[in-house]
Amino acid sequence: MLLVETLSEIEDLDRSAMEKAQRKLDSLIKPPGSLGILEKIAVQLAGITGNPSPQIGEKAVIIMAGDHGVVEEGVSIAPQEVTVQMLPTFITGVAGIGVLARHAGARIVVVDVGVASTVDFPGVLRKKVKAGTGNIAKGPAMSREEAVKALEVGIQVALEEIKRGASLLATGDMGIGNTTPSSAILAAIGGYSAEEVAGRGTLVNDQVMNVKVRVINRALNVNKPDRDDGIDVLAKVGGLEIAGLAGVILGAAAKRTPVLIDGFITTAAALAACKIQPKARQYIIASHLSGEQAHRLMLEELNLTPVINLNMRLGEGTGATLTMHLIEAATKIIREMASFDEAGVSDLDDDKILS
Amino acid sequence: MLLVETLSEIEDLDRSAMEKAQRKLDSLIKPPGSLGILEKIAVQLAGITGNPSPQIGEKAVIIMAGDHGVVEEGVSIAPQEVTVQMLPTFITGVAGIGVLARHAGARIVVVDVGVASTVDFPGVLRKKVKAGTGNIAKGPAMSREEAVKALEVGIQVALEEIKRGASLLATGDMGIGNTTPSSAILAAIGGYSAEEVAGRGTLVNDQVMNVKVRVINRALNVNKPDRDDGIDVLAKVGGLEIAGLAGVILGAAAKRTPVLIDGFITTAAALAACKIQPKARQYIIASHLSGEQAHRLMLEELNLTPVINLNMRLGEGTGATLTMHLIEAATKIIREMASFDEAGVSDLDDDKILS
Repeated sequence: MLLVETLSEIEDLDRSAMEKAQRKLDSLIKPPGSLGILEKIAVQLAGITGNPSPQIGEKAVIIMAGDHGVVEEGVSIAPQEVTVQMLPTFITGVAGIGVLARHAGARIVVVDVGVASTVDFPGVLRKKVKAGTGNIAKGPAMSREEAVKALEVGIQVALEEIKRGASLLATGDMGIGNTTPSSAILAAIGGYSAEEVAGRGTLVNDQVMNVKVRVINRALNVNKPDRDDGIDVLAKVGGLEIAGLAGVILGAAAKRTPVLIDGFITTAAALAACKIQPKARQYIIASHLSGEQAHRLMLEELNLTPVINLNMRLGEGTGATLTMHLIEAATKIIREMASFDEAGVSDLDDDKILS
Repeated sequence: MLLVETLSEIEDLDRSAMEKAQRKLDSLIKPPGSLGILEKIAVQLAGITGNPSPQIGEKAVIIMAGDHGVVEEGVSIAPQEVTVQMLPTFITGVAGIGVLARHAGARIVVVDVGVASTVDFPGVLRKKVKAGTGNIAKGPAMSREEAVKALEVGIQVALEEIKRGASLLATGDMGIGNTTPSSAILAAIGGYSAEEVAGRGTLVNDQVMNVKVRVINRALNVNKPDRDDGIDVLAKVGGLEIAGLAGVILGAAAKRTPVLIDGFITTAAALAACKIQPKARQYIIASHLSGEQAHRLMLEELNLTPVINLNMRLGEGTGATLTMHLIEAATKIIREMASFDEAGVSDLDDDKILS
């Protein structure tokens, strides 16, 4: 079975490649460590790929789309049909992610893993597991079997993209109402209250916020997800696109490929993925800190530091894709800068340096 | 006289273009404001250029190089000759800024405005005002006339680059020892103590830190710079490359061109530039928060928010150049995204939105 196989393939990072990368960075014509987070990213990429001089080639943004039964509770400011309406704008490049993926030189892969209505727009991968989840305020989002199927859709798509040549993946989401299940996942896995995990999403007002808190509480009480079982959490209070995104992360980790998470929804997927296989965490790069308030708690739970913080809260993979340029910069630093010796630059005075 | 002329050309931003840009942003297929700082940058660029759909074409990084008499006090871990040794690595592209400028698609302009030794490497603009500053712990860095000359070198180079087609400038510095005068500028203009403004620079140890604090104190006491006179501050406790960089900022503002500041040294230049002509502030984009501890104070003084924070402290314009990609992203968002109407996407429910 693809999921089990994938989980067994995920290994720890290559420590030897990381040490070599660190030594190389320390030899370059700059004060030690002065490129900050770029240097840490370069070392992580060396560990992920096993190459002390890591390189980024092709890049792909994988957007998983799904609908949520819970929207009937009134948790979103956008009607459910917006999920399917947005898909063509991803393909034609006029949505936020379309513009930013073009800017990043990344291809977009749009996957219908659980949109409520029929998607017949060309260019969308048809991998529908189910036409939208059940309302988590009343019962499970999906069965355990469906959650596994959605995870495997994500794994499949990740493996295909890597086979086609992608060396860096970004994750993106589309699904009206999906901050509510993402909050529920954080509450379940991190042991937080509904008040701590609920957020403004696409800027809902206080009234809708109160609805969200009540719905998250009911989802947890009705479904009682097992916090130690990532698949159970996804099935009971998650979403089809969230499970798909968790699969993308696991697939990338199995193939030693760096994967960028985006905002609140993809990070909820990462929480579930790392519960299923904790080693996957090492292959994740947290791109940005979302404007959604509880995103910070998710990243703390994962012990990941976001590269940028631009107060964005659009989703679609926009933050992840915007960060690709910085990831590539990290690899170019380690591959293209000269050492003190090579450049004939006088070395620093060790007696004066902070030890 | 070029400086006076330039100062008189600097006007406020175009409010009408900014309002049009904001209306356009609010019509696009995304929750309002959900692209965060990118949206603010797009609006600022509209105001700077007068174009409600601003566009970035050619990009240039202007690196000003100069030496500092104060290094004889032992404030740096690198010997003074490193200033001149680094210049060829900028031109050949193997320094940090060389790699990042290539990655950004920006050209590099290296200017000798005050290097101590003779610079005969091809590709460096020879605009030396003086072969290094005087030791600010004992007297002024330079005369007022020399400060004006260095400012005008920066203005000239900025004007030339804009004439050649640059629509976005980044500023970079090279000058061993230049965190000390930059700290002194912050202390003078912001009214801070030497302890508050001194930092680790290229990671000096506690002993060198103590020297830096003493030197900054002496520089302020010996020279008594007038905090309301930016030129006086530059002449007494500044540096030739810092004055040159202040000139670049003023030149960019006069020609309604956005200019990215980098870390501690270029932000010290911005402090002086905005003291000379406060309207220049509106044309500046703060690229990153440097690892140098007092950089935060400088940005507060200028009321500017950095776009990224990667814990970098290399200088050379590396942070500014790395941010160019994000600035371009902001312009592409406003130019290339579709509106709700254009895309046929259902509008958001105003009754549920946070007002």
